[in-house]
Order: sequence, then C-alpha cells, then structure tokens
Amino acid sequence: MGDFKHLVLVKFKEGVVVDEMLGGMAKLVTELDYVKSFEWGADMVSEETLRQGFTHAFVLTFKSKEDFAAFSSHPKHLEFAPTFASAIENILLFDFNAVLIKPAP
Amino acid sequence: MGDFKHLVLVKFKEGVVVDEMLGGMAKLVTELDYVKSFEWGADMVSEETLRQGFTHAFVLTFKSKEDFAAFSSHPKHLEFAPTFASAIENILLFDFNAVLIKPAP
Repeated sequence: MGDFKHLVLVKFKEGVVVDEMLGGMAKLVTELDYVKSFEWGADMVSEETLRQGFTHAFVLTFKSKEDFAAFSSHPKHLEFAPTFASAIENILLFDFNAVLIKPAP
Repeated sequence: MGDFKHLVLVKFKEGVVVDEMLGGMAKLVTELDYVKSFEWGADMVSEETLRQGFTHAFVLTFKSKEDFAAFSSHPKHLEFAPTFASAIENILLFDFNAVLIKPAP
C-alpha cells in the first residue's frame, strides 16, 4: 500500500499575507505526527487558464487514510480551518491512495 | 532547491479505458529519465463538489524545471499527448518548485 495524499489547490483572496498562512500550516503539520510530509509551491510556469486560476498548491502525505482522517478531525486542524477558509477565494481538494509507478531513485 | 512538481488533475470522458491511459503514461515516464518519480490516484474520499469533478490525479516529480521542460518537449511526450488529450473532458495543470516544509522521516 502506498501513501495517502491530500492535495489542496487554492486561490488566495487579494491582500492575503500568504506567508502568514504558510506559517500557520507549517506549525500545524509540524505539531501533528499524523502528517508524514508536507510541501507546497506557487505556480510560476503554466498558463493561468490551464491552472484554472489557482495560485498555490499544498501536498500533504500520510501513511494511511486513517492518519489523514485523524489529522482532519484533530482539534488543532479544526481550530486553524476557519482562518484558512477566510483567506481563500477558491479551493480544490483531491484525496487519494497514491499508486507509485516510478519510485524516486 | 527542492524538486519540481507537475500536478495533473483530469476528468476522463465517459467510456475511456483508464487502464489504457495509465499504461501509456507508465511507459512514457519509465522510458524518459527526466522523470524522477511518478504516482497517481483516483479520489475516493472528498466530495465531488470539493474536487470540482476531477476523477484522477497524476504527480510527476523532476529534479529541476529544466528536466520538466525537456520532458514536455520530448518527441515521445509529444507523440502521447494527443491520445491523452482526446480522453479527457477537463484538465488542470499546476507546476511548481516544491518547498519542503516537513520531510518524510
């Protein structure tokens, strides 16, 4: 069984201090052992139409779907969620068991 | 510098044999050394509205943006692209330098 991935694509509202959001997320994933790894990025390459207006991607990796569920319902996550929700104009979530076809060398 | 990630979210057209598409992608990423790793998944968890109708996610990882560019313009990729394009109803691309906040243990 591979990892469980939680992809989050967002478009932040104008005026949002993205570094503050990132700080909150970094704190959350560092404090909660359920999160196996966390990385993020801003799209600097693809055309805006192809990325459908989204500006930032967050990739959270968990050992299992159960760990993801435990993270999602954790009080610290629930506490941070409204702050995050108030900063975004659009969001797309995609949650899946990752099937690894080509492992990193 | 972290990895460069190429996220692809798609909604396949009705009647598409997803395994055939996956076979073509697996062949492509295996043949081309530019691709550091490749994994995919189908969303079985989040609500359809939250995933905005997308059904499958593909995560391609490269050592650099240059390797991604070399992959994108490679004849084998260009040869496969129309087959893939004909199978999809909607696509979202998101390309970014991945900033690793919490590395896997």
